[in-house]
Amino acid sequence: MSVLVVGTTALDSIKTPKRENPKLLGGSASHAAVAASFFAPTKLVGVVGEDFPKKYIQLYEKHGLCLKGLERVKGGRTFHWSGEYEVNMNNRRTLETVLGVIETWQPAIPGDHETVPYVLLANISPQVQHRVLDQVTKSKFVVADTMDLWLNIALADVLRLLKRIDCLVLNDSEARQLTEEDNVVNALPRIHKLGPRYVIIKKGEHGSILSSPKGLFVGPAYPLKKVVDPTGAGDSFVGGLMGYLASQKRGSVDDHLRRAILHGAVVASFCCEGFGLTATTKVTKAEIQARVRELEKISSF
Amino acid sequence: MSVLVVGTTALDSIKTPKRENPKLLGGSASHAAVAASFFAPTKLVGVVGEDFPKKYIQLYEKHGLCLKGLERVKGGRTFHWSGEYEVNMNNRRTLETVLGVIETWQPAIPGDHETVPYVLLANISPQVQHRVLDQVTKSKFVVADTMDLWLNIALADVLRLLKRIDCLVLNDSEARQLTEEDNVVNALPRIHKLGPRYVIIKKGEHGSILSSPKGLFVGPAYPLKKVVDPTGAGDSFVGGLMGYLASQKRGSVDDHLRRAILHGAVVASFCCEGFGLTATTKVTKAEIQARVRELEKISSF
Repeated sequence: MSVLVVGTTALDSIKTPKRENPKLLGGSASHAAVAASFFAPTKLVGVVGEDFPKKYIQLYEKHGLCLKGLERVKGGRTFHWSGEYEVNMNNRRTLETVLGVIETWQPAIPGDHETVPYVLLANISPQVQHRVLDQVTKSKFVVADTMDLWLNIALADVLRLLKRIDCLVLNDSEARQLTEEDNVVNALPRIHKLGPRYVIIKKGEHGSILSSPKGLFVGPAYPLKKVVDPTGAGDSFVGGLMGYLASQKRGSVDDHLRRAILHGAVVASFCCEGFGLTATTKVTKAEIQARVRELEKISSF
Repeated sequence: MSVLVVGTTALDSIKTPKRENPKLLGGSASHAAVAASFFAPTKLVGVVGEDFPKKYIQLYEKHGLCLKGLERVKGGRTFHWSGEYEVNMNNRRTLETVLGVIETWQPAIPGDHETVPYVLLANISPQVQHRVLDQVTKSKFVVADTMDLWLNIALADVLRLLKRIDCLVLNDSEARQLTEEDNVVNALPRIHKLGPRYVIIKKGEHGSILSSPKGLFVGPAYPLKKVVDPTGAGDSFVGGLMGYLASQKRGSVDDHLRRAILHGAVVASFCCEGFGLTATTKVTKAEIQARVRELEKISSF
């Protein structure tokens, strides 16, 4: 089965103490869709401006992404984020954000996308996420990601979204912000009360926690020796997770979610090994599968 | 087989925003020995002053600890630590430390303690840890814990100790301090080069990482809904781990270390649920085993 990914398609300029990387391919949908594409046919829904380089379109195509839902606005500017990392790569600050074509975008889902079973609402404004949900008709499993920005400026829309999705993915600080509960284990039932039956809290290098009708699952992260650039790791995680779920021919989401988290964690680990999407787009499915086996081995009793 | 635990036996006064807890039973050896006692016969080696309450001796005895190696100094004062936790229980600061009898203590190991196979050098000065190693003759597995203080003021003694032990247990910030390497996965081979064949990095609520001749193991922490007082959790972790190893009749340390880490993590989780040793000393072995099964279940694929 296939995956529909909606989110930002962006140009990211990432500065580190050692180098500058201008206008890399970035955005939540770019990372998530490439990650999903390793496992299942993936349809990308996003918007870019006229400045969006052809080489990035080719990179999408190399990963077999269906681009029917990628809108190109004539004369428009692509969403552009620039940020800077500190020496230890743990803290980053935004230098500039140019919304460009994303500011007024009203996504229109192509007809044959409406019945895609796995829908990933990667990080983008909740208004856009709602608009996509208004158009899909046969979704089997809908996952949404979000960020602190939307909790700050569009909380009502986020809360309304939580009633419409199966699974919310967010990081630990966002879970604290959403629930005003300092302990993330305690935050989980509070998030379920807001709507989603599945909640996944991302903890970066410390792995993740899933809360589902089958109970808790503490998921490991792949222990990386070198983190080059963590931008997009969370998007790669949820993209890999959705791609893996969509690739399963039998059984329910519950049957496969733990292994899906393992696969998402591995794609996220590759993402961190290069700037932007450079490492993720170079990796092979065989390398992903080998690292999944390794992660399974180093986290089993 | 039995476990020898040497470390501090202390009185801890722990202040939180909600209450004060004066002169609780504390110290690295108290926590570690009680934790080990759930699984194997445990011998405690430490020193207390005349002010050490009889009820705490009785608490040790309730856990079946052999106290032949617990020295009592007439007219002396027991080591006393007082500290304060902030609202979220993540940060603590030391208010006062009175070394008392520990300052000049030269441990003398009782004759029948010299051949104990599992030796745990819980956190105490490396000079005391060396002096214990000078006296044990048939150790099968020696584990040492340490803290930032000793890396600051007695680094040469710590480095000499690392050549004499099988396993070093330390937290992530101490691993960074010891190796001057920011990435803990990269810190591991550097610590092996300093001596120990086994290294365990404690990451608190995020679990632990073991590096051994058999490779890496990413160990989970038990997801706690409420942390009352994390003091002694690290000592409980390594104590439970050693007790479990000593309880295994067949096989090598390598065969049992992953499950030992699981058991240590569970005893540590109980430790966090009460001030000082209050929760740990109330729990039963059956409750520990039930939580081990639960942790195994929530961290398996």
